[in-house]
Amino acid sequence: MNKYNSISGFRLQRIEAISDGVFAIALTFLALDLKVPVNTLVHTETDLLHTFLNLAPKLLTYFLSFITMGIYWLAQSTQFHYIEKSDRNLNWINLFFLLAISIMPFTTAFLSEYIHFKFSIFLYWLNLSLLGQILGLNWYYARKHTLIAIEGDEEKTVTKNIKARIIESQTLYTIAALFCFINAYISIGLLVLIQLNYALALLSKRKR
Amino acid sequence: MNKYNSISGFRLQRIEAISDGVFAIALTFLALDLKVPVNTLVHTETDLLHTFLNLAPKLLTYFLSFITMGIYWLAQSTQFHYIEKSDRNLNWINLFFLLAISIMPFTTAFLSEYIHFKFSIFLYWLNLSLLGQILGLNWYYARKHTLIAIEGDEEKTVTKNIKARIIESQTLYTIAALFCFINAYISIGLLVLIQLNYALALLSKRKR
Amino acid sequence: MNKYNSISGFRLQRIEAISDGVFAIALTFLALDLKVPVNTLVHTETDLLHTFLNLAPKLLTYFLSFITMGIYWLAQSTQFHYIEKSDRNLNWINLFFLLAISIMPFTTAFLSEYIHFKFSIFLYWLNLSLLGQILGLNWYYARKHTLIAIEGDEEKTVTKNIKARIIESQTLYTIAALFCFINAYISIGLLVLIQLNYALALLSKRKR
Amino acid sequence: MNKYNSISGFRLQRIEAISDGVFAIALTFLALDLKVPVNTLVHTETDLLHTFLNLAPKLLTYFLSFITMGIYWLAQSTQFHYIEKSDRNLNWINLFFLLAISIMPFTTAFLSEYIHFKFSIFLYWLNLSLLGQILGLNWYYARKHTLIAIEGDEEKTVTKNIKARIIESQTLYTIAALFCFINAYISIGLLVLIQLNYALALLSKRKR
Repeated sequence: MNKYNSISGFRLQRIEAISDGVFAIALTFLALDLKVPVNTLVHTETDLLHTFLNLAPKLLTYFLSFITMGIYWLAQSTQFHYIEKSDRNLNWINLFFLLAISIMPFTTAFLSEYIHFKFSIFLYWLNLSLLGQILGLNWYYARKHTLIAIEGDEEKTVTKNIKARIIESQTLYTIAALFCFINAYISIGLLVLIQLNYALALLSKRKR
Repeated sequence: MNKYNSISGFRLQRIEAISDGVFAIALTFLALDLKVPVNTLVHTETDLLHTFLNLAPKLLTYFLSFITMGIYWLAQSTQFHYIEKSDRNLNWINLFFLLAISIMPFTTAFLSEYIHFKFSIFLYWLNLSLLGQILGLNWYYARKHTLIAIEGDEEKTVTKNIKARIIESQTLYTIAALFCFINAYISIGLLVLIQLNYALALLSKRKR
Repeated sequence: MNKYNSISGFRLQRIEAISDGVFAIALTFLALDLKVPVNTLVHTETDLLHTFLNLAPKLLTYFLSFITMGIYWLAQSTQFHYIEKSDRNLNWINLFFLLAISIMPFTTAFLSEYIHFKFSIFLYWLNLSLLGQILGLNWYYARKHTLIAIEGDEEKTVTKNIKARIIESQTLYTIAALFCFINAYISIGLLVLIQLNYALALLSKRKR
Repeated sequence: MNKYNSISGFRLQRIEAISDGVFAIALTFLALDLKVPVNTLVHTETDLLHTFLNLAPKLLTYFLSFITMGIYWLAQSTQFHYIEKSDRNLNWINLFFLLAISIMPFTTAFLSEYIHFKFSIFLYWLNLSLLGQILGLNWYYARKHTLIAIEGDEEKTVTKNIKARIIESQTLYTIAALFCFINAYISIGLLVLIQLNYALALLSKRKR
């Protein structure tokens, strides 16, 4: 590592601050697509209900994208609870994570425009996959270079759970994506179900 | 709760950071609707005054939306003053809170486009109602899982005041919304007055 | 003050966090107006230089708006260096400060569209004036309710300097605005010079 | 320095907070240019692949702009790791740094629209150069006014490395820019390679 790089990147809190900024914008920008249609043809409450129901697919896409972002935001936040130091490389790993987050609205829009094509499913899967892999790299790197705050059994448990979650989710995403060779809608439906499952574990019991 | 979830979501400050980001963007985006009309027909100061007065409804809507956002931002900030720990579920509760915040510009625009329809009042009321309920859930959950920093009498007082505020505001919003069966404008006028009342308690005396 | 309000608004750091968010967005949004013109008629370096020079007014406006925002951001940041506690009212004072910041791009655009009208100068002046007055109120309120961290002579010096700066700048802005009765361009030129003077005190010597 | 300025600008954390906000927005806005083309002429997977490949230049530009932003964000973050105090002037130095960051999307778009002109390369180089110079000034100022947290040998090493990096990068950028007198594409290619080299030092070994 060259001399400049060896004095660079120690400011852990800035990684988290810029991440929260990027996520906040990504979350909010998704909602900008929700345009209210003009009311020329709306005369009755029933007309308005129909107008609103036409927006349902957009609202649903928004809801799902929001949840996907939430999952990855929480996953990064979880890792940083245990990371106490940073260096230049950890900064770049997280910048690439944010890069993959910031193109998520693009790959999502690409999928919804070309919903019956294998290539657009592949692209969406690639984006999800990249996010998982970068998160894996983040934890692997932090551990290897002793940037984390925990050790011994606690470190082993946390590492095991992080690893298991990444491998499990990547496997599920890949299986779901491969279903596109049978039917695109099944493939997308499965991807959605997997996301929902991770978010709505909300309903799961919490150990006291 | 599964193993991954039990190690996830402890980073309380990130919930607040992403919330401030989302609110900052929501507050500022509202102002993007304020477009300056081009000046082809403006020749005198009086013309310009008329042009400006035509913008008055938009400025008023902006002012009221800003105040609504401010009320909920302050309500969340208030709760987090007393919350000292977080877990995965608290993260998701707050992500859903931010989801309801981020669609507020949409439901507001929907209301102003279809101002004389019951359905659009219902939608706006639903959004306000969701925000109140999620805030209620946030405090309920934080208390139940001992994530808060206060106890004894202080905890009781704070809980009582938070509860009273949510029940009171939800009741007022619901009554206001029901007035749409008599007249849409009365209904909206009441909703606006309730919001103003909460914000402008600013003018109320402060106990020293 | 009612019971809910008496338990609300203690989270000082959130006021600063949402302020930095709003300022960051306002600063960056200003640059979105800088559109690159398409190149159909550009054949030589000289053509391109002309194209660029046509953008000069927009670049200048951007530069000046950025400086104005910077002045008010720094003024708020300065006050919060000395403020150690907050309450509900201080939150709302700062939310109204952010409201006045977020409509600044609008009043600026209004001024540049109707540059030779008294009313648009009045509006711009009103916005600057509001910002100064809210900042004054912020300090006055924080002092009155013992929310500040300093006392004795230090408190007196800081208060005197903050007051002097607000009175001085408000007076200068008002004089500059009144010049619109003679000539709009002189008026705007003076407003610009005053802003520049506050920002470029940068070049002034610093006591060691 | 006048009296007001001498009490102003001590809030170091706000400089970092507003910087992270501006960078987060700049990074995310770059992605808004990635529009999904409508699907009227896409019938087969091959058609879709072609459609996607047509977006490649935009994706590449986005990737490179993101990396450029990342380099400067990290450079500023690095300096602030060693800075422990601030004053009014340091605030303005960093505001001007953010000004140069916020016009980067403009100069990049200008370059990609007029890619074969010397003037647009000059403008892009000027922007990169300004960023480097302001960062240099930031460190120089912080050192001169004892705003930094380190001293002795550590201070000398850090200063030497920061200086070396700025001089090296500025020299490389200038040489690359001068190649535009031979060929615009060589010039741009070199600028890109230099950026990539700084970012992808990621792959370099890290001293344990």
